[in-house]
Amino acid sequence: MRIGVIGCGYWGSKHLRVLQNVQDVDQIVAIDAREDRLLALQRSFSSLPSFRDLASALPHVDALVIATPPGTHLGLALQALRAGKHVLVEKPMTTSTAHARRLIDEAEAASLILMVGHTFEYNAAVWKLRDVITSGELGDVYYINTARLNLGVYQSDINVIWDLAPHDVSIINYLLRSRPTTVQSWGSSHAHTYLEDVAYLRLHYPQLGIIVQIHVSWLDPCKVRRMTVVGSRKMAVYDDLADQERLRIYDKGVVAASKDDALHGLPMSYRYGGIVSPFISLQEPLSIQDQHFLECIRTGRQPLTDGENGLAVIEVLEAATRSLAEGMPVALEAVPAYGDHKVHRVYG
Amino acid sequence: MRIGVIGCGYWGSKHLRVLQNVQDVDQIVAIDAREDRLLALQRSFSSLPSFRDLASALPHVDALVIATPPGTHLGLALQALRAGKHVLVEKPMTTSTAHARRLIDEAEAASLILMVGHTFEYNAAVWKLRDVITSGELGDVYYINTARLNLGVYQSDINVIWDLAPHDVSIINYLLRSRPTTVQSWGSSHAHTYLEDVAYLRLHYPQLGIIVQIHVSWLDPCKVRRMTVVGSRKMAVYDDLADQERLRIYDKGVVAASKDDALHGLPMSYRYGGIVSPFISLQEPLSIQDQHFLECIRTGRQPLTDGENGLAVIEVLEAATRSLAEGMPVALEAVPAYGDHKVHRVYG
Amino acid sequence: MRIGVIGCGYWGSKHLRVLQNVQDVDQIVAIDAREDRLLALQRSFSSLPSFRDLASALPHVDALVIATPPGTHLGLALQALRAGKHVLVEKPMTTSTAHARRLIDEAEAASLILMVGHTFEYNAAVWKLRDVITSGELGDVYYINTARLNLGVYQSDINVIWDLAPHDVSIINYLLRSRPTTVQSWGSSHAHTYLEDVAYLRLHYPQLGIIVQIHVSWLDPCKVRRMTVVGSRKMAVYDDLADQERLRIYDKGVVAASKDDALHGLPMSYRYGGIVSPFISLQEPLSIQDQHFLECIRTGRQPLTDGENGLAVIEVLEAATRSLAEGMPVALEAVPAYGDHKVHRVYG
Amino acid sequence: MRIGVIGCGYWGSKHLRVLQNVQDVDQIVAIDAREDRLLALQRSFSSLPSFRDLASALPHVDALVIATPPGTHLGLALQALRAGKHVLVEKPMTTSTAHARRLIDEAEAASLILMVGHTFEYNAAVWKLRDVITSGELGDVYYINTARLNLGVYQSDINVIWDLAPHDVSIINYLLRSRPTTVQSWGSSHAHTYLEDVAYLRLHYPQLGIIVQIHVSWLDPCKVRRMTVVGSRKMAVYDDLADQERLRIYDKGVVAASKDDALHGLPMSYRYGGIVSPFISLQEPLSIQDQHFLECIRTGRQPLTDGENGLAVIEVLEAATRSLAEGMPVALEAVPAYGDHKVHRVYG
Repeated sequence: MRIGVIGCGYWGSKHLRVLQNVQDVDQIVAIDAREDRLLALQRSFSSLPSFRDLASALPHVDALVIATPPGTHLGLALQALRAGKHVLVEKPMTTSTAHARRLIDEAEAASLILMVGHTFEYNAAVWKLRDVITSGELGDVYYINTARLNLGVYQSDINVIWDLAPHDVSIINYLLRSRPTTVQSWGSSHAHTYLEDVAYLRLHYPQLGIIVQIHVSWLDPCKVRRMTVVGSRKMAVYDDLADQERLRIYDKGVVAASKDDALHGLPMSYRYGGIVSPFISLQEPLSIQDQHFLECIRTGRQPLTDGENGLAVIEVLEAATRSLAEGMPVALEAVPAYGDHKVHRVYG
Repeated sequence: MRIGVIGCGYWGSKHLRVLQNVQDVDQIVAIDAREDRLLALQRSFSSLPSFRDLASALPHVDALVIATPPGTHLGLALQALRAGKHVLVEKPMTTSTAHARRLIDEAEAASLILMVGHTFEYNAAVWKLRDVITSGELGDVYYINTARLNLGVYQSDINVIWDLAPHDVSIINYLLRSRPTTVQSWGSSHAHTYLEDVAYLRLHYPQLGIIVQIHVSWLDPCKVRRMTVVGSRKMAVYDDLADQERLRIYDKGVVAASKDDALHGLPMSYRYGGIVSPFISLQEPLSIQDQHFLECIRTGRQPLTDGENGLAVIEVLEAATRSLAEGMPVALEAVPAYGDHKVHRVYG
Repeated sequence: MRIGVIGCGYWGSKHLRVLQNVQDVDQIVAIDAREDRLLALQRSFSSLPSFRDLASALPHVDALVIATPPGTHLGLALQALRAGKHVLVEKPMTTSTAHARRLIDEAEAASLILMVGHTFEYNAAVWKLRDVITSGELGDVYYINTARLNLGVYQSDINVIWDLAPHDVSIINYLLRSRPTTVQSWGSSHAHTYLEDVAYLRLHYPQLGIIVQIHVSWLDPCKVRRMTVVGSRKMAVYDDLADQERLRIYDKGVVAASKDDALHGLPMSYRYGGIVSPFISLQEPLSIQDQHFLECIRTGRQPLTDGENGLAVIEVLEAATRSLAEGMPVALEAVPAYGDHKVHRVYG
Repeated sequence: MRIGVIGCGYWGSKHLRVLQNVQDVDQIVAIDAREDRLLALQRSFSSLPSFRDLASALPHVDALVIATPPGTHLGLALQALRAGKHVLVEKPMTTSTAHARRLIDEAEAASLILMVGHTFEYNAAVWKLRDVITSGELGDVYYINTARLNLGVYQSDINVIWDLAPHDVSIINYLLRSRPTTVQSWGSSHAHTYLEDVAYLRLHYPQLGIIVQIHVSWLDPCKVRRMTVVGSRKMAVYDDLADQERLRIYDKGVVAASKDDALHGLPMSYRYGGIVSPFISLQEPLSIQDQHFLECIRTGRQPLTDGENGLAVIEVLEAATRSLAEGMPVALEAVPAYGDHKVHRVYG
């Protein structure tokens, strides 16, 4: 198996490093228009063939990882699929639902694997959090609140919603095994002339009665990667920066007060309990993801984060963009229940 | 000077404790309909006359602190003002702007002091943060983000916006020496049947080009009291729970990239610097506030947090309530610039 | 029951406040040579009789709490016991074992309650930690490491060992239900001319095979109150400043490697697991302690922190003082096993 | 320039990675007895010649980095020096002062560079801390307290003192530009049969009047890398795990009280001020160190962490070992003042 990585910046080089240690990979190929990047890579990687453009590289690869700016995803992915190559495209998959749909159709017609790089769905802490939710340990989930804040790094072709929110939307769709039906958003550009650098999204999952509030920012003094899930019985906080305790489960809750308490003017009764940080064995999510890509290619299995999964995220981003412009909530089209990932064969 | 405190629950007893150590106070009087509370207070306070209702207490006091549920503020304050007593009313001042206006008019007509218990305007960390903003150290303020989260304590007659947001609105009006012109809000009731227990507010201060986002919650596993002020030159975080460093100033910033950087695909340039936590001498804000109340009574000085100040907060809460119902931003009526606190005499 | 508190500084006023809310107390009496302190107290406490010296106060009390500087404990306690009053003396009980023994004998001869203010033995987090150790959850306890650091507050008549280490020694004797047989210590005076302001103690509990290292300091920029208990199966950290999680239990351990691992050069094998912070219901330890004092007086029950308990701590401090001077470990005399607190009647 | 790295475990592979990006390096060579390690490296490094033993590798290198277990350092370094190769040996340099002295003599006789891998002396946070001390900002340094705690990783041939304390001793010698004259230590083996896994060292720098207390452990639930420097004017905490604020300077101090305060029973007066975390630009210390090695080879400059520097650390470790056995402080031989690093030519 020969894999090309196009776009060898920060994230692309991570793919190169990770793929180097994946067993089925026979050859890695680097593709980037910038000569300086390719030269730097030569120092670090053994026998790394490199190309300046996709066309010249295609004959030398069986599959392609696309880690270029989002605006180029559609074109590069189509080019690869049409040449019969499997494709793993970084998030956001594309810059519109129409484009995402085109990629899905193209891959299906050609019986090729199309996968989206929603890395967090390969993160053991996220898996554990889904287990905790699914098992009923939290009771009914009331709402989810997330913050993904940074100082920088501004993208040149997308705003902070398209840059950071794909992570949160993909994680929450995954946690809830569902998709939102309404999206509202607010954003503002402060340091940048026109790209929003601070934004808030509000997603409704009415089948579940859950509201999700997402805060993304390129303009915060503190790096934050936090998700709070509030349930009727317990509450969980997933902090991706807390190395030793990414997940903390609080045995705390609020319920309507008993008649007795209500008589004494207490509307609610509170339960305070301990805190548990389950041990989560660390394995690099990007590595698990890229191995999964190779396994899907080998076996014809549908990827966990397939095109439809990527499209579901793009739908939210697109709706958020409209909401930003219109100042109103935007309804997503009725979507079929988003059940467990179906494992069926794409080809052969 | 004889001062009555009506409503001797959690917050009212704090006033009692604080007033006990204020020099000009000759006599404190407790007023509460609940006999058990009055009995408990007798144990802790020396010679504390107490009454079951305001009418019986009024002849024995010169001024009144109102710490009862918000729905009762108007009635009690009117009753006191009409009896010629100065009034300090806890936040939120009233449950509508019309009521707030009525109190202001009544106090003015009677040449009595009317003050609102916006304690944070008497907090040395908030003062320091205003100094930092005013001095230009942060550059242009871009936006402010706040979180005031709790597990509990639910109020019986107001939702989480009316309970917690008065603090944030009063602090931000004070910091910016201005008032918002538009308010938008979202909220939802999860554990409570109908009162919103999680909410977000978005305030516009268009004269300053500043957007403020407020998050309040009775349903969070972690107690949070945090305000982030993002400026073009520096950023500040005020964490009211960080005893030793309530205020941290980050010498970090983002500016549009130079032409050179822009050519290399970097839209912005970042500045990373040190962090400074200025020393803030601690004095209990409630005590400073209550001393100020007494000083205003003695001198006829207009309180820093006078009726107009309280009304400005109620306007925001009322607009937030409408926005919640209508799902749209709500404009506040054009308000005169909210300059520095004028110190003029109310009477004498 | 009428209780006097002698020494109405920081700690003495805490006793006054706490005793005010203890049911059996009919009358509290304040005793202090400083008029200004007594005047300040009059403002805060209802009908508080006060005296300038013990002799005048004794006829008006049945029991005495001694919160004066350690050098005065012996004299005041003897005076009170000889007048037939029960005594609760603050830590350190006395400044020598001989003095401590004298108090014990005097109280026993007079059938009076003698109790020492080792507050931490009435702290729910310490109780929980002892349960965790006793239950075997930690496996064999290997060693305990503590840090009790401050900036200030220097005492005028004792060094940092006598000021801060009584807490740690009393907690650890309590946790291990045992006493050390050897004590070594090092200390140095830096900011103070001659009183040690930074010190380390090393205690051996050879029956249990446990070593304890204590670090006390008046000269640290950060306030620290931490105790780490390392066991063969799990480890626990008790942080008295972590309001929400005073106790954290780490499911981590190290054991000698299996033969197989050893062959591959790994001397040990490690176990990493989750972290649990059990919920600990907060009740003020000083209040529990003072209630216990009153209950012991009423029932004739032996206090949990009786004279012998206080003496055991003084023995360690005295040995530490000798070790400091001699630069050598100092053996405590063979002590009988220090079993569970015997509950027997002192009188009646 | 061709460089060999012998010992390609955790730390050796770091050298390989770092050397790959150093400009003057023409060829890197891996040397390890374990075939599996060499095979794994082949995957990650481009054209990496490898050898199973030093003898076969020597003809292919000009310089050698030794990252094998400490017991083998002497033999391998001698072998390399005798073959005319420059040597960078990992810490601890050797397992005795006699061995260290032999290496120094051998290198000097052969006019070869001998350098010790005391990485922290190439760490920008340590540089900044030395600047702060040297500038007098802290006032007189009173004492230094360090903690370097881990769960694991046990070494097979050295105890925790020889494993972890070299870092602290090298940092403190560097910070103070001096060496201790007395060393005392205590240690105990808990989980390991005979190697001490928890230990404390106490170093005296009497010329400076400074005492240093070092705590090292393989048996702690929390990873800690902290150094507190207490001065008469300010205090500093260097926390190597605090990514964003490795160094914090506390504007706090304690001084003997004025006569007036002393009269009121206050022995000391305290100064509380702000906290500053200076910005420290991050560059990987290992990379700076290895570049320095190459620069020294090229220019004949004496390394900052030369043999004498390494020997100074070994002297402390050796004394600590004797103190552990004898239970007494151990004096180091009178050492010449350890001034600023002399930059003189070794050869050429």
